[in-house]
Amino acid sequence: MHSQPTVIDVAAAAGVSRQTVSNVLNSPEIVRPETRERVERAIQELGYLPHASARRLRTRRSSTIGIRLDHLAADGISGSVLDRFLHALTEQAATRGLRVMLFTAADADDEIAQLRRLSDGADVDAFVLTSTVHDDPRIDWLWGRGIRFVAFGRPWGHLDAPHPWVDVDGQAGVRAATAHFVATAGPRVGYIGWPAGSGTGDDRRAGWASVIAEHAPAGMFVDGLLADLEIDALEGVAEGGRAARELVARTDVDAIVCASDSLALGAFLAVGDTVPVCGFDDTPVAVSLGFSSVEQQLGEVARAVLDLLALPDDATDAQAHRLVTPRLVVR
Amino acid sequence: MHSQPTVIDVAAAAGVSRQTVSNVLNSPEIVRPETRERVERAIQELGYLPHASARRLRTRRSSTIGIRLDHLAADGISGSVLDRFLHALTEQAATRGLRVMLFTAADADDEIAQLRRLSDGADVDAFVLTSTVHDDPRIDWLWGRGIRFVAFGRPWGHLDAPHPWVDVDGQAGVRAATAHFVATAGPRVGYIGWPAGSGTGDDRRAGWASVIAEHAPAGMFVDGLLADLEIDALEGVAEGGRAARELVARTDVDAIVCASDSLALGAFLAVGDTVPVCGFDDTPVAVSLGFSSVEQQLGEVARAVLDLLALPDDATDAQAHRLVTPRLVVR
Repeated sequence: MHSQPTVIDVAAAAGVSRQTVSNVLNSPEIVRPETRERVERAIQELGYLPHASARRLRTRRSSTIGIRLDHLAADGISGSVLDRFLHALTEQAATRGLRVMLFTAADADDEIAQLRRLSDGADVDAFVLTSTVHDDPRIDWLWGRGIRFVAFGRPWGHLDAPHPWVDVDGQAGVRAATAHFVATAGPRVGYIGWPAGSGTGDDRRAGWASVIAEHAPAGMFVDGLLADLEIDALEGVAEGGRAARELVARTDVDAIVCASDSLALGAFLAVGDTVPVCGFDDTPVAVSLGFSSVEQQLGEVARAVLDLLALPDDATDAQAHRLVTPRLVVR
Repeated sequence: MHSQPTVIDVAAAAGVSRQTVSNVLNSPEIVRPETRERVERAIQELGYLPHASARRLRTRRSSTIGIRLDHLAADGISGSVLDRFLHALTEQAATRGLRVMLFTAADADDEIAQLRRLSDGADVDAFVLTSTVHDDPRIDWLWGRGIRFVAFGRPWGHLDAPHPWVDVDGQAGVRAATAHFVATAGPRVGYIGWPAGSGTGDDRRAGWASVIAEHAPAGMFVDGLLADLEIDALEGVAEGGRAARELVARTDVDAIVCASDSLALGAFLAVGDTVPVCGFDDTPVAVSLGFSSVEQQLGEVARAVLDLLALPDDATDAQAHRLVTPRLVVR
């Protein structure tokens, strides 16, 4: 093992005492600027690394973000979005000198126990929450203790909640996809989405419905038109295929927008030779098979999450909430 | 914040001195077993958490494994395998009290710098290397410094290299797929694989070729039969489709085995209605579309990686190399 420079080497190179080097590392505000610069230059030139654990012990800062990694679902076509977010987060975090620590949890109670363990041990100084749910107990727990975190996902039904969150504006994405098909294929754009009741699903559907209503012929009963062009399906490739075949058999459609790439894959294989199809998430499957999709811009999401983690404590609620506009990828 | 039990609480509950509690935590071998058990019981009952950074500073052990997370390729159908390995590794590590720290690197030099930083700072006490290459500089660097690591991937051409590695026996997986098709569809099983020269690709092809040779009619020129049934393709869905159409137009095939799910997806969409197709990696696409594939058993791989990380220093080379047998999933 090659020998690492020590604090003594740094002190000698900068012509200061060991205590001054220590002050620069731990209480730089008490060191005169010229001295500080000299020490910092010596640290850099020598490649001195203060022992991370020692530094962490003094500062209680680990520069590490904790994030839960879930067990993968078997049908992970859309599930891979969180993996892609993790790649983006790890890359962006590295450019800010932050690292990402993974943990797993068996259930909500176990996850709270993990959050406690990681923050008490100063292993992690902030968390990123994904797969948030209504009245998420993790949010209450972290918020109540003043532990830094950002949620990827809106608190549906409580959008005025003060905790920081970042989400993707799914409504805007589906609106763009629907408007594109109205302009290029015709006004009768069908929609395959999940049964009503999920925040994310209802939001995406609203994007489609707003464009259809806007382009409805004068005097037409809009609710009837929407009901005619829409069909519910549970998430899944087979379900998307079934729904697409049923929709095409029942009514004329110029194109089909789907709430996910799993549904879109099924629809594309079932009716894609006659009707253009657009999915949501721009997964590798959409890229490979060549159907349009809405890309969540996970790089933007990761950047916003890290911005919010660095927000000062007196930031306003409006600053703590970010909605990222996704991008339509036409194929 | 609720108040955490301290070492003083533990000492009181166990009826021992603070020094004894400290000894149990840091030098358990010098404490009498009965005393140790009493202190450990008190630690557990009180939920006492020794400050992780302090413990780490004393022991220079972080119980953390470092792994590089790469930028995702656009066509990530097979690329998602490493994400699935990461899920398995994180889950299995948690059951052994280990955590996973992610980092990124711009290139090989940057990665060595990251390895140095993470190990010098005692942030990480072992590494898992993925996407290993011929004469991987990371392996030399880590091995030369005595830093613990395990490579996921064989050192092709240097299988006797002493460093610990785990790999999947791709040859056995493709052999199983080919034998299955010979038994259920007929002896003329075609193969779509990558151009010769990659360790992984050549190994998978050898599995197919061995079964074809075994079942070749007596007196037949085996090399000619292999050449007739085989076609090269670069990795990709479109390439798989093109190769499958060409192969089927050129000769009679009873089934097609592919070196990857990307190739198999293309082949399945092109000729899957007339010829059964098998891929490799058992990705979500194979599950969703319903073609057979070879599953890498990443849970087994993760377990083997963690076993090798815990190997004593005097383990033999044979103990430090594990080949995991993949599983054919017939659909």
